[in-house]
Amino acid sequence: MNVTVHGRTRHYRTVTFDRARNTVRLIEQRLLPHEFKIVATRNFRETAAATRDMVVRGAGAIGATAAYGLAQGALAFRGGGLKKFTTYVEIVYRTLRAARPTAVDPVNAMSTVRVAMRAGKTVVEQQALALAAAEEFADENVRHCEAIGQHGVKLIRNGMKILTHCNAGWLAFVDIGTATAPLYAAQAQGKKFHVFCDETRPRSQGATLTAWELAQQNISHQVIADSAAGHLMQRGEIDLIIIGSDRTLGRTGEVTNKIGTYTKAVLAKRHGIPFYVAIPLSTIDWRLKSGFDIPIEERDESEVLGAWGILNFKSQISNLKSARRAYVRVANSSSGARNPGFDVTPPELITGIITPAGIFKPMELWKNRYRLGYGR
Amino acid sequence: MNVTVHGRTRHYRTVTFDRARNTVRLIEQRLLPHEFKIVATRNFRETAAATRDMVVRGAGAIGATAAYGLAQGALAFRGGGLKKFTTYVEIVYRTLRAARPTAVDPVNAMSTVRVAMRAGKTVVEQQALALAAAEEFADENVRHCEAIGQHGVKLIRNGMKILTHCNAGWLAFVDIGTATAPLYAAQAQGKKFHVFCDETRPRSQGATLTAWELAQQNISHQVIADSAAGHLMQRGEIDLIIIGSDRTLGRTGEVTNKIGTYTKAVLAKRHGIPFYVAIPLSTIDWRLKSGFDIPIEERDESEVLGAWGILNFKSQISNLKSARRAYVRVANSSSGARNPGFDVTPPELITGIITPAGIFKPMELWKNRYRLGYGR
Repeated sequence: MNVTVHGRTRHYRTVTFDRARNTVRLIEQRLLPHEFKIVATRNFRETAAATRDMVVRGAGAIGATAAYGLAQGALAFRGGGLKKFTTYVEIVYRTLRAARPTAVDPVNAMSTVRVAMRAGKTVVEQQALALAAAEEFADENVRHCEAIGQHGVKLIRNGMKILTHCNAGWLAFVDIGTATAPLYAAQAQGKKFHVFCDETRPRSQGATLTAWELAQQNISHQVIADSAAGHLMQRGEIDLIIIGSDRTLGRTGEVTNKIGTYTKAVLAKRHGIPFYVAIPLSTIDWRLKSGFDIPIEERDESEVLGAWGILNFKSQISNLKSARRAYVRVANSSSGARNPGFDVTPPELITGIITPAGIFKPMELWKNRYRLGYGR
Repeated sequence: MNVTVHGRTRHYRTVTFDRARNTVRLIEQRLLPHEFKIVATRNFRETAAATRDMVVRGAGAIGATAAYGLAQGALAFRGGGLKKFTTYVEIVYRTLRAARPTAVDPVNAMSTVRVAMRAGKTVVEQQALALAAAEEFADENVRHCEAIGQHGVKLIRNGMKILTHCNAGWLAFVDIGTATAPLYAAQAQGKKFHVFCDETRPRSQGATLTAWELAQQNISHQVIADSAAGHLMQRGEIDLIIIGSDRTLGRTGEVTNKIGTYTKAVLAKRHGIPFYVAIPLSTIDWRLKSGFDIPIEERDESEVLGAWGILNFKSQISNLKSARRAYVRVANSSSGARNPGFDVTPPELITGIITPAGIFKPMELWKNRYRLGYGR
């Protein structure tokens, strides 16, 4: 999507590949929303480190990064025959996989690239096929997000006020995003609407990443405290809710997403407000039979007990220019916290699931499983 | 309640009067939870300034402060007759009233003191009556909170996990508090329970004031993000909810309280979890006929866009010891916010209203209005 830096507006993807320099170029997401910077990793080990250190985050984005990282490693191979090359690629694969050991997207992305490579009969052929497959993987990610936008845009009417939670935007994918895709498509069609971004405590991805995305795209929006959405619904100020998902159960239609999603779904049901979940096919889990089997990560309590932000040094502390990003302890110093990272929303609270293959009732994912990538 | 400072535990009220020095002694609430300090105001103008500047906050606490401030002013009067004294007291009254012009508690408190004074035939008699009435006002506030505790404690069983939102604790009253009163009474009876304190963004009174109160009283508790309560309810980890109220409509049973209260009530209803509101009689509004007539304050957007806390200077910024409390900007710098301060919870979501006169169904307040102070 577009980013304006020093008054110049340019189109960026979160991850791209530079053939001439054999580098993977990533938006340094840890600095957002306060600073925009592109980093280039010079070899597959740097690409793995950038993934591990959260320079890049989000299911689609780390998948594409791993695909490019595998191609980057393959292209750097010099000398030896196909056998040595294959052994070397295996090291590259394992290094990139170890960067985010619990994530499924990098593994799937690299499998796609490895299958494509096998058609090559020489090292050079396999190198070329690896890069082509990585590029195709990234492009397909973008096409799928575009398709989500084309299906979801039909839900947006002029003058609507739309709520979203956390960040399922283009920063989490290669471009466009999932929950944001219908918004960007509606803007392209000239529709007028307003977005409320849930702050999304404790990590504040709504106030930071989603608000930044919408600001860069000049979409009318405001940040709200997570507690404010209920009041706005009561007063008729929210017409539609679109959120993302980290894992959707294909058998039951249950949706796992950032903590607070379930609360919004319960409120939406009470107020008769349509509640949609936008997902890429890769996040559908066809195996699990109950949402209660989904492990809910308990994260560090420091996230709840304080906040990260930018200090306005000029007004607060004189003669200090170096450090800018800071953590403040908000809570009572002798108190602890509980910090579940995700929650599970049952299908009866969900109006529809927006996928690249169309919009489905959550209970109808299983019936449509072959259209939705089951068994692939 | 008890406060431990430098290892010594002592009982404090939020506001007390020092007859020998003619000072009002207040807990400096703006420094909590990071620092505990008592300030003494030397005359009624300083008492008004402390009220205006939020050294003291909370309905009951600012009521008692105004009552004491009026007595303080009256006691400082020297020379002249009853007529001059009466004119002087009128100035004191107006000064204290202007400190929080929209609050109703200081006005009611001072009216009580003025009515009591009229029985005196001399300046000296009226001065003594003013102080006695102010002391009685503060004591009655404490007795009412104790009564709320005695009614509410019956709801608490061993092993319960209890959710509260914002701060309706002893810091907001003279002592004990309203939503916290049943907790303190249960502790006194030796009951074991655990409290989840909603962080209560954007001003974080749950993470700061309520967590501090419970820590001082050695009550087991944890802070949670406002978004986490729904997940905890789903997993059966919340048994009871007790919150306070800024204004409860006596005719309809609608409850106005800190933003996010309505959301918790909706979730509680879905999960069949008892939802109680603890209130002093002074916050019942017998006049309004609909919750939609309650004006909802829209507060400054900076509250939502950032957070106040304590900087850990040692690890973050070297050679800096003076400034400690700091505001960090969390959100994207070019984004704005909506910040409604309160919401309205309808009676069908409320299990009961805990008052000093007993526990009532919200729709039965009107029927019991004479027991609940209507027309007084």
